[in-house]
Formats: sequence, structure tokens, C-alpha cells
Amino acid sequence: MSVLADAVKEFVADVAVPAEQELGLGEPSEALRCRLQVAARERGVFAPQVPRPLGGLGLALPELRLVFEAAGYGLLGPLALNCAAPDEGNIHLLDLLATAEQRVKYLEPLAAGEVRSGFAMTEPAPGAGSDPSLLLTRAERTRAGWHIVGRKWLITGADGAAFTICVAKTSERRATLFVVDADAEGFHLVRRVPTIDHLMPGGHCELEYDCHVGHDAVLGEVGEGLRHTQARLVPARLTHCMRWLGVAQRALDTALTFTAPRNLFGSRLHELGLAQGLIADSVIDIEASRALVARACEEPSLATSSVAKVFVAEAVWRVVDRAVQLAGGAGVTHDLVLARLAAEVRAFRIYDGSSETHRWAIARAATKRFASSAQQ
Amino acid sequence: MSVLADAVKEFVADVAVPAEQELGLGEPSEALRCRLQVAARERGVFAPQVPRPLGGLGLALPELRLVFEAAGYGLLGPLALNCAAPDEGNIHLLDLLATAEQRVKYLEPLAAGEVRSGFAMTEPAPGAGSDPSLLLTRAERTRAGWHIVGRKWLITGADGAAFTICVAKTSERRATLFVVDADAEGFHLVRRVPTIDHLMPGGHCELEYDCHVGHDAVLGEVGEGLRHTQARLVPARLTHCMRWLGVAQRALDTALTFTAPRNLFGSRLHELGLAQGLIADSVIDIEASRALVARACEEPSLATSSVAKVFVAEAVWRVVDRAVQLAGGAGVTHDLVLARLAAEVRAFRIYDGSSETHRWAIARAATKRFASSAQQ
Amino acid sequence: MSVLADAVKEFVADVAVPAEQELGLGEPSEALRCRLQVAARERGVFAPQVPRPLGGLGLALPELRLVFEAAGYGLLGPLALNCAAPDEGNIHLLDLLATAEQRVKYLEPLAAGEVRSGFAMTEPAPGAGSDPSLLLTRAERTRAGWHIVGRKWLITGADGAAFTICVAKTSERRATLFVVDADAEGFHLVRRVPTIDHLMPGGHCELEYDCHVGHDAVLGEVGEGLRHTQARLVPARLTHCMRWLGVAQRALDTALTFTAPRNLFGSRLHELGLAQGLIADSVIDIEASRALVARACEEPSLATSSVAKVFVAEAVWRVVDRAVQLAGGAGVTHDLVLARLAAEVRAFRIYDGSSETHRWAIARAATKRFASSAQQ
Amino acid sequence: MSVLADAVKEFVADVAVPAEQELGLGEPSEALRCRLQVAARERGVFAPQVPRPLGGLGLALPELRLVFEAAGYGLLGPLALNCAAPDEGNIHLLDLLATAEQRVKYLEPLAAGEVRSGFAMTEPAPGAGSDPSLLLTRAERTRAGWHIVGRKWLITGADGAAFTICVAKTSERRATLFVVDADAEGFHLVRRVPTIDHLMPGGHCELEYDCHVGHDAVLGEVGEGLRHTQARLVPARLTHCMRWLGVAQRALDTALTFTAPRNLFGSRLHELGLAQGLIADSVIDIEASRALVARACEEPSLATSSVAKVFVAEAVWRVVDRAVQLAGGAGVTHDLVLARLAAEVRAFRIYDGSSETHRWAIARAATKRFASSAQQ
Repeated sequence: MSVLADAVKEFVADVAVPAEQELGLGEPSEALRCRLQVAARERGVFAPQVPRPLGGLGLALPELRLVFEAAGYGLLGPLALNCAAPDEGNIHLLDLLATAEQRVKYLEPLAAGEVRSGFAMTEPAPGAGSDPSLLLTRAERTRAGWHIVGRKWLITGADGAAFTICVAKTSERRATLFVVDADAEGFHLVRRVPTIDHLMPGGHCELEYDCHVGHDAVLGEVGEGLRHTQARLVPARLTHCMRWLGVAQRALDTALTFTAPRNLFGSRLHELGLAQGLIADSVIDIEASRALVARACEEPSLATSSVAKVFVAEAVWRVVDRAVQLAGGAGVTHDLVLARLAAEVRAFRIYDGSSETHRWAIARAATKRFASSAQQ
Repeated sequence: MSVLADAVKEFVADVAVPAEQELGLGEPSEALRCRLQVAARERGVFAPQVPRPLGGLGLALPELRLVFEAAGYGLLGPLALNCAAPDEGNIHLLDLLATAEQRVKYLEPLAAGEVRSGFAMTEPAPGAGSDPSLLLTRAERTRAGWHIVGRKWLITGADGAAFTICVAKTSERRATLFVVDADAEGFHLVRRVPTIDHLMPGGHCELEYDCHVGHDAVLGEVGEGLRHTQARLVPARLTHCMRWLGVAQRALDTALTFTAPRNLFGSRLHELGLAQGLIADSVIDIEASRALVARACEEPSLATSSVAKVFVAEAVWRVVDRAVQLAGGAGVTHDLVLARLAAEVRAFRIYDGSSETHRWAIARAATKRFASSAQQ
Repeated sequence: MSVLADAVKEFVADVAVPAEQELGLGEPSEALRCRLQVAARERGVFAPQVPRPLGGLGLALPELRLVFEAAGYGLLGPLALNCAAPDEGNIHLLDLLATAEQRVKYLEPLAAGEVRSGFAMTEPAPGAGSDPSLLLTRAERTRAGWHIVGRKWLITGADGAAFTICVAKTSERRATLFVVDADAEGFHLVRRVPTIDHLMPGGHCELEYDCHVGHDAVLGEVGEGLRHTQARLVPARLTHCMRWLGVAQRALDTALTFTAPRNLFGSRLHELGLAQGLIADSVIDIEASRALVARACEEPSLATSSVAKVFVAEAVWRVVDRAVQLAGGAGVTHDLVLARLAAEVRAFRIYDGSSETHRWAIARAATKRFASSAQQ
Repeated sequence: MSVLADAVKEFVADVAVPAEQELGLGEPSEALRCRLQVAARERGVFAPQVPRPLGGLGLALPELRLVFEAAGYGLLGPLALNCAAPDEGNIHLLDLLATAEQRVKYLEPLAAGEVRSGFAMTEPAPGAGSDPSLLLTRAERTRAGWHIVGRKWLITGADGAAFTICVAKTSERRATLFVVDADAEGFHLVRRVPTIDHLMPGGHCELEYDCHVGHDAVLGEVGEGLRHTQARLVPARLTHCMRWLGVAQRALDTALTFTAPRNLFGSRLHELGLAQGLIADSVIDIEASRALVARACEEPSLATSSVAKVFVAEAVWRVVDRAVQLAGGAGVTHDLVLARLAAEVRAFRIYDGSSETHRWAIARAATKRFASSAQQ
């Protein structure tokens, strides 16, 4: 594991970070994505989380921690290793649920990096944000299968994706997952929603479904969509944390690299002490994040991943923000990577459940024990 | 004063905010700037801080507070009123120091909004950041005047500016201000530095001076450049705070407007409490900021403006960040103005002295009394 | 005003602070209180807020700000000046509401410092905390007057007070104030509740009322008790803030005095920078607090005093806590006054409405405008 | 391990917490200490960290984590289990270093709980705080052994201790440890320094050494005192964290127990949301602390224990402070245990290196790599 993490570090330093010059401030092109994946394969670091039969390295969740953090150090690292969201989570989900046919049609090309995918859960207000119980998208049985009707919003990577996995209500209290081909009739990419981040190929899209699909579009069991979604959610939260920790370390290193020679010239000696506070707090944030993720990987659950996600998302944000501050004027320019990192990580405190939603759930769980004992 | 603030509020609501549609995510065009200034004149709100003889409304610093905050509520408000940085500070400085000739040539067209200007102090490392004592740009006397040589960095508005006011060392410990025409030989706009904000016409530029200028280019007294810079700095810090407070109020209002109907639909009732914490903290931040600015306007000094600047810069940042968080997924899209506001205000914690530099100065001032008494 | 503030500063430095030696870690004795008030009279600084006809200096709320802050700098300063809680607020209330008889019997001796008093509003759960609408204490009309029945809790100064002003429900939605003599039959001091602070003469008590009082016990109008309470509450919040700001300044000065010579010996040079951060943050907290209190004094209201109270209570706490931290090991000993200051100010974030209650109210006020417009 | 942690939890709930009634607000008596240790022995939970040959349970550092946290849940738990500071660290140190004679004379009775001990490192200014390089206490060789001269300060447990382990300089850059009997001539307990905490038997003392001791008083190697101190420091920091985590959990549980029925009565419904924020933040703080301690136990070092210590000390403080806040008025009374917990944990952010000292060290370590590369 540690050997692989080192190999990924080297790959990121040698290949993925230099490729950022080509990336500019925009979105990675399909050509760049393919080229980087070829390079990753050559280095033996492609698809660390993908099961071996599917061509990956077959690492388990705790083993992925250092590897994904190393990948996240480069803006293009996760894409190169085919372990970026949302494909990474979709591969995991398809591997758990897909039928033999679905494996051939969807999982294999996705695991190989031949296609991209989307996971269509969140909806524009008043629909489901990160709370799936508020789903407005519905699927009704037809003779030939299902009729899916609804609108999704902020669906990452949907533009250019070969298919999306759509979460739709199939009864009052139950949902079902459907794999919908991008060329399905009635599937409509309304627009790419303009966002502050620019790293995800395919952007964050608004989608409209008014599609008739066959029974073979059902992923997993009918009515078990929310349970299946949770099976995806827990590891996806943690792999997010791992990758973003790479970003945090990158930000801190960038700030230290940038400021180090300035101190030698003596120009900022007076700021040294306050800078030390920023630096130490960032080290502490990173170490606490790593520790929380490591523990959550040992006992992955909705509860442990929720605590880890809210802490890490906020810690990463603080680390990147402090790095910008440490770099001074240069920190708000694109001469350094910091401004871009700040834009990329901002949404992490919101998606996969906003910090406020997680806090609400954490507090409710903590008080439940006491509330019930008081009622007796 | 309050009447004028109300008039500005109306102007911003009726004219400046709607014009943001035209602005998009980019920089205001010269045409848009001119059109808005014409509209502001028609409404009688143009140039509130400009002395009456120069065509402005002649308000003193404390009177400007509510007016500038009202202007800052719109992204384009300060530009429309010709009270945006850096022109606003330059008008103030020129009014204090300019010779009769300089008034005609530089101050009058600037006050009228006919031209734009730049203030060239900060330099790339290892030169002067916000600390003017580290100046590397130098001016040496020649027979016909002065020879200015140096490089400046992050000079706001310089692209397209009719002139820049350049701070250059003229002896070991002294600096002098020079007004340099944009078409002066040896003045070179190296590049616009790409930054995370996009609102300033003329961007933030890197400049090279290798110019021969006449004695008439000297602004104020030779050797008094740093003192003159401070005369500009104190009110400029406070007017910055005023304008940014408008941004903070805009952010909070935007978040509340966006979230209000969602609560009515019941979709976010469970988040209400945690949202209340974010909202209350933002109200408190805004009120404390207003109070600090009001007090600093009554007794403007390096010390009071420093405390106000560091508090307000951080408070505005927190308010905008909380507004993004309150808006959830929409907060990181450009469907709302919040993401843009966040990008625009980030640099406020860095320019005019970073929060760390100010804290260092504040602590030094606080300890000085005790340190000296201990030595006796 | 400033002259008086200077006189109070001198009095506190010369008399009140030295008297802390006598105070030790406990509660001021009645003898000490009397002696200090005599001394304050001699210096011409007694009762700054008390109307002139009652023997005070007759200052208005905005004029009190610097005077009360100067008094609060000494643990015994407010007591010496007869401007400590709860007497200060009760004097204000009685001056607004008392009948001629009540003035003679209660207000005059209280204003003169001859007696102490209590204000009995808060109740043990599930009664009224800082929310008077939850009052469980009731008063019912009898032939001769009123029968008050209820239990009060954390009533400051009640042990040894000559009388308490008791808030009791007199109809479903209305309350009334009653002045109850300490020797009234059926008035019972249950206990002094042990608390972390020790500065208030008379402690914080639990009281039981089962008293028959005459009509002359009614203070103000029957049924207007909550409105009267608010008339006391707004200035009482602000005078609290003023006094506690003195504590904050005392804490910072103590830490700086203590640490200054250590720096000279070179023993803590490596901590200088991080210490600067603590110091600067405390200066900023104090200045922002002062500014908020000054503004709230200009436009006193429930809303402005609420924002000021929550900010100042938390800022004072932070300042004292940082001072402890700056002093290192000595900070947690009673060799310095800091540990005591920390114990004394802790409750400030809870009484007069906890920070959470205020935030809830502030958020509700902020959202009201938006919620109603959304409903239309 | 988990079985033992459960046994400790039961012991604390059944024995240690009820014994707090007897404790009151003061310090545990010797009789109470002995009685609790007898009870702990009977339950089989005595001395979990003490090697088996010495009568303990022989757990390794990572195994101690949950056990010590369970012990720390009760104010008297660590004392009952003979795993409180400073004895716990001294047992560890003696076990590493003591000669056969010293084992019999000092280690065995200490491990058995028959005596108490002190660790005398910190000195009054300008001597060694938590930085041993500033030691002023010196020991010089005599014919018969050593002559120790110096003053120590804040030496926990020294009043009533059978011996202290004194750190003294024995050459310009080197220190040596000495075991000094409490009845040694020239050993003088100057005073118990009054502090805000009251839980440590023997208090925090100021000591004077002017003692002649024999060669057999040397603990470990001459000149290796600082290295030996570090051998004690790393595990001592972590066991501190473990015990204080128990305090944090106790505080949160106390607040939730106290507030739970109040919510049922409906009296605080409006505060629910803001309370949730406090609760969730405390859960997150506790979980992050646990994760950091667990990781530091796996790879104990100065670096990992430093990061854990600074984070946990501040997190525990926040958790206890929030619990006070959650409990409202009752939180600042001694009707609940919270006010006492707050007093007990305050010093944790200062001793074993203040948060600022740790941050300085953490920042220096983080920047070292970059600083050196920049110099090349």
C-alpha cells in the first residue's frame, strides 16, 4: 500500500502536476483525460480501487487512504487514476449491484476509463437536496418497463457521460435506481450550471428525464434505491475526504514553497509569528483529518463517515484559505495554484450533505439516547 | 446624508443591480461604466465624495459611510458613482496635493469620470508589499526631472488608466510620488495578472517603469511620498470597508431571499436552527463592522483604521461565506450572485495590508507601552 | 464626561484595585462595600448614573460608557460607585416607576448605597429563564392586595438585600412587578446557589415567595410588568457591557504587564509571534465591543442592545481567556487576577439572555422581512 | 481491552462518580484516595498501565486509550485506578530508569498506591516553563554526591508526596534527574500555589531545593535528564489526552441529561437548533480527538503527541465550555458538575507545553523542509 502511495506521489509529481499547465483555468479535455490515464496505466497506478478482475489494483477502503490522498495532490491526479467522483462511486455501486449484462455494458467500460458517468440524485428546490426523502423525480411502471419523469440538478459530469444513474421514487416511501443511457429518448441535458469550480469533466448539469426505459435499466432491487444510495454514499464520502486531503497538503506545501525564500531575504520577518500560527493550525487540521478518515475507514458507517466528512470538508477549506493568506497578494492571483484550489474545494462543504445537514444529523443521534431515557 | 443614502439605494436597486446582467462574470466595459455614470448623474448621486467645485456632492468621511455602503450593495454601484477604488483614493490624494496644472490635467477629468487611474505602490517580491519601506522602485534626479526605474505589481485598474501615481524611493529613507502618463515613454504594461476577482476595470496589472519625467510629475513634496501615501491610506481603508459592507449586506439579503420560500415549502425545516446561527452571526458581524467604521470615521488614524480594516475585511468574508453556505448547492453556482461576491471580496483580507500585517502592527502598538515601562 | 472617566480611573487605581487584597477570593463584606462607597464619595465619583436630586452625578447612558468601563476595571469599582448590578438597574427602574412613597422607602436608600436590592425574574426549570413569557410565579388579587406564590432562582444579591422586585404573572398573558421587603412574611431565602463567581454581595439565591403584600407593593402598572422589565433590560444590558469591558481591558493589561519583562529577558522570544496574534485579537475585540456599545447607546433598543450584548459577552470572554493563555502557568493561579476574572465573566454569556437565545432572536428578526415577502 | 474499559466504566459509574459527593468542591483526602483504590482493586481495574510484576494490568499505550478515557469520566476515576498525573508518568519513568534499589524504595510503593510523588521541572520566570533548556535549577558534584539548588513552581502533587523527581542542570547543556525524598534536608515546600483547579491531591506547589543528595539519587544517566524527560513526556501527553477525553464526554453527557427533559416540557424549543450546533460540534471535537490520540498511540513521537496534545486540549476545553452554555444558568452553578469540570480542564491548554509553544514547534517542523531547500 505504502509502495503504491509512493508510486502515485511520483506519478503526480512527474505527470499530473505538469499537465496542469495544459489545463489552464478550465476543464480537462477528453484528450487530456485519456492521455493521463494511459500514463497512469504505464506507471502501474491506474484504478487503485477497481477490483482486479476489472483491471484495477483491488485495494480495500483503508488501503486507499494514502493512495487517494497522493492522487488528490494533483488537480488531475484522480482523473488520471480513474478514481475521481462521480465515476469512482459509480464503479463501486455497479460492482455491488449490476447484473451480468449491466456489468458488460456499463461497469467494464467505466472501470477501464473508456466512458464517463453521472449519478443523478439532487434536484432543484423544492426537491431533494442531499436528503433523498424529498425526491420529486418519479418512475412509474409501464408495460415495457418504467417511465421516469423529473428534473435533476448539479449532476456532476453529466455532459459527455455515457449514462447516468438516476434515483427516482417508485412508491410513496421507496426509490429505485435506474441506469439511463445518455442517448435515451426523453433524456435532456438542460444546461451546464455555471459554478465556481472548473475541474470536473462534464461540469455540473441540469437534466430532464422524460424517458421510457426497460426493466433492464433497474439497478439493484426495485424499491431499494435509498439503501443502495447509502451503500454508495459512505465510501464515497470517505474517498472524497482522501482526495481533498491531497488538495490541502498541496495548498500548504505551495504556500510554504512560495514564502520560504521571502523569509530568507528578510522581507517578512515581522510576520513570521502570525504566519506560524496559520501554518501550525493547518498541520493540525490535516493530521486530525487524516486520523478521522483512518478511523472511519476501519469502521465505515453513516455516523462515522458523517463526522469525518463535516470535519474534513471544513478543515480542507481552512487549510486552503490559510495558504492563500500566507501567500499574500500572490495568493489571489492565478500565478499560484492556490486560488484555483480554493475555488475547487468550496463546494465540498455543501455537497454530499452540507455541514449544517450533517451537524443536524450528528446532534440528533447524540441526543436520541438522552431524549428517550427522559421520556420514560 | 440619510436622504442621499436612500437615493443611492434606489439607484442601485433600479439601475446598478439590473446592469449586472450585462456584466456577466467578466469585467465592466468602458461603455457600461460611462452609461452608469450618466445614470448616476441624472439621479443626483454621482461622486458623493468629490468636492463640490469639482462637480461632486462634497460629503465628509463620516457622511460617506451609509452612502458608500449603499453603493457597494451593487457590484457596479461604486463604479457608477465614481467612488470605486483606486480612483476614489486618487481623487482624494490629488485634491490634497496637486498643483494647479495637475488639477486641470489629472484631477478634473478623473473626478468627472472621464478617465481612470492607478496607484502604483506594491511590488513583486522581494519588493514592497503593503510595507512601503521595502520599495525597490527608485527615481533619480536628472537634468530635466527624474528617471523612474522599477517594477510594480497588482496595480489595480492600470490597464486603460490615463495615468498612474507611482511611489518611488528618492533617497535611502524617503520616497516621492510621481504622476506618470500612460503614454509616457518607458512605461510598460507587462501583463494583467490573472486574479480571482473580475470586477475592476483595468484589472490588476504588472507594470514596468523606465521613464524620464519632468519636475511637474512630482505629486506633493519630494521625499514626502510615504507621508502622502498614508494620507491616502487612512480614508481609503475606511471607504473600502464601507463599500464592502454593502457587499456583505447584499450577500445576506440574497441568501435570505433565496432560502425564505424554501422554508415555506417545508423542505428545510430541520436546518432552521443551524441556519439561524449562521444568520445571527452575520447580522452581528455586519453591525460590529458598521460600528467600528463609524468610530474610525470620527477619529480617523492609522491605528483606528487598521483595527477597522482587519475586522471588517474578515467579517465581510465570513458573511459572504455563510451566505454561500445558507444557499446550499445554489450558493456555489452563478445562478446566484453569491459565488461572485465571494470571489470579489477574498482579496480584501490581503490588500491594504494583510490581516496578519495589521495584527502585527496592532499587537506592537499594544505592547509598546508595557515594554517600555518594563525597561525602566 | 471624559474628566469623570479619568477621575474614576484614578479612584480605581488608587483605591478599588488595592482593596482587592482585602477581598481575597471571596465576596466583598458589607464593611468593605461601605468603606469603598465613602471613599468614592470623597473623590466625587459616587453614583454616576443616579439622578442629581438623588445624590448622584446624573449622567445619561452614552455618557456612562467610559465611566462604567473605568469602574469595571477594578473588581470592586462598580460596587464602590454604587453602579453594580442589580442595584444599578433597580435604581433606574424605581426612578422610572416608583410612587412618591416607594421613592422614599426604596429608591432613596438604594441610591445612597444604604441598602442593597434584588431583581427576581428567573425561575428554576421549567419556569422562566431569560424568557419572561414562561413565568410560573403568580400573584393573585386578595382583598388587601396581592398573594404572590412562586420560586425564583439565581437572584443576584438577594441574601442581605433589603427588598426584591419580583416579576409575577397576574393574568394569562400579563405580569406585574412587586416590591417585596426582605422581612415580609412568607418570603424565604431557600439557599445561596453555589456558583463559579464570588464577587456579588449577596450571591445568587434561590427564593420562595408565599407572601401577602399590599397594593402599595405594586411597582408601575398592574399588567405592565413585562414592558417595565424591558425598560430595565435595555440599559441594564448596555451597562453590563460597559463594566465588563473594563474587565477585559484589565485582563489584557495584566497579561501584558506580566509578560513584558519576560520578553526582555529573552526567555519567550520564540512565542512572540503567536502571542502577538492573541494580543491583536484582544485589542480588536475590545475596540469592536466599544464601538458596538457606543452605537447602541445612541439608539438604545431591544435589537441594538441584543446585538451588543451577545458580541460583547463573547468578546470579553475571549479577551480574558487569551490573557490567561498569555500568562501561561501563572494565568491559572491566583497569583494574578486573571483566573478570578475568568470565573467572574463566564456567566455573562448566559445571563440577560444566553448567546444562543439572543442569536435566535436576532436571526428571527433578520428573516422576518424576507419570510413575509415570500408569503405574498 | 474493551472488556476492561467496560469494567472501568462500571466502576466509575458505581463508585467514582458517587464519591464526588464526598469530594465537594475541594481536594480528595488521603482517606478517600485509599478507599477508592481499594475499591478499584476489588473490581480488578487498579493500575491498568502498571507492569504486571508490579501488580498492575500491564496494558500497552494503545490499549490504555479507552480505559483511561473511561477512568477520566469520573473526577476521581484516575486517582482510584492509580493512573492520575503525575504518579502515572513517574511510574512509567521509574520503570524505565530506576536501579534495583530505586525500584524497591520508590517504584514499588508508588505503583501500589502507597505513596504519591511529584515531578519537578517547571520553574518560576525567568526559569524553565515547559522549555527545559531554560533550567535555572542546578546540581553540582560534591564528594558524597550532588548539591541541588533551585526553585520549582507549579509542581503537582508535591504537598504530601513521598518524593519528587527533580530536573536539574548538571552542565552547560545537560541536565540530570534526581529522586529527592520529601524529608531530605534542604527540601522546602514554600507554598501551595492557589489555582483554579482543586482536584490534585497535594495541589500545585512551589518548592525550594538546597539539598545534598547521594549518587543513588540520580535517576537514569547523568547528563541525560532532558532525554529521560522526553521519554516521560510523550506517553504522559497522550495519557493526559485520554483522561481529559473522559472529562469531555462527561461534560457533554451531563449537558444532554440536563437539557433533555426541558425540551420535553417545550420550554426551550426555540433554542433547539442553536443547541444542535453546540452538540454536533462537541461530538465532532470528541471524535477527532479520539482519532488523533489513537493514531499518536500507534506511532508515538514528540511530533505526533504534540499535534494530539494541542488539538485535544483545545477540543476538550471547547466541549466543556459548550456544555456549560447548553445548561444555561445551571451551568455556572455547582448544582451540576460542569462548572468544576471547566475549572479542572483550563490548565490543560497550558501545561505540558502551552498551545502556543506547541504551535510554534509544529510550524517550525513544517517549514524546516522548505526553508532548507530554499537555501540551496
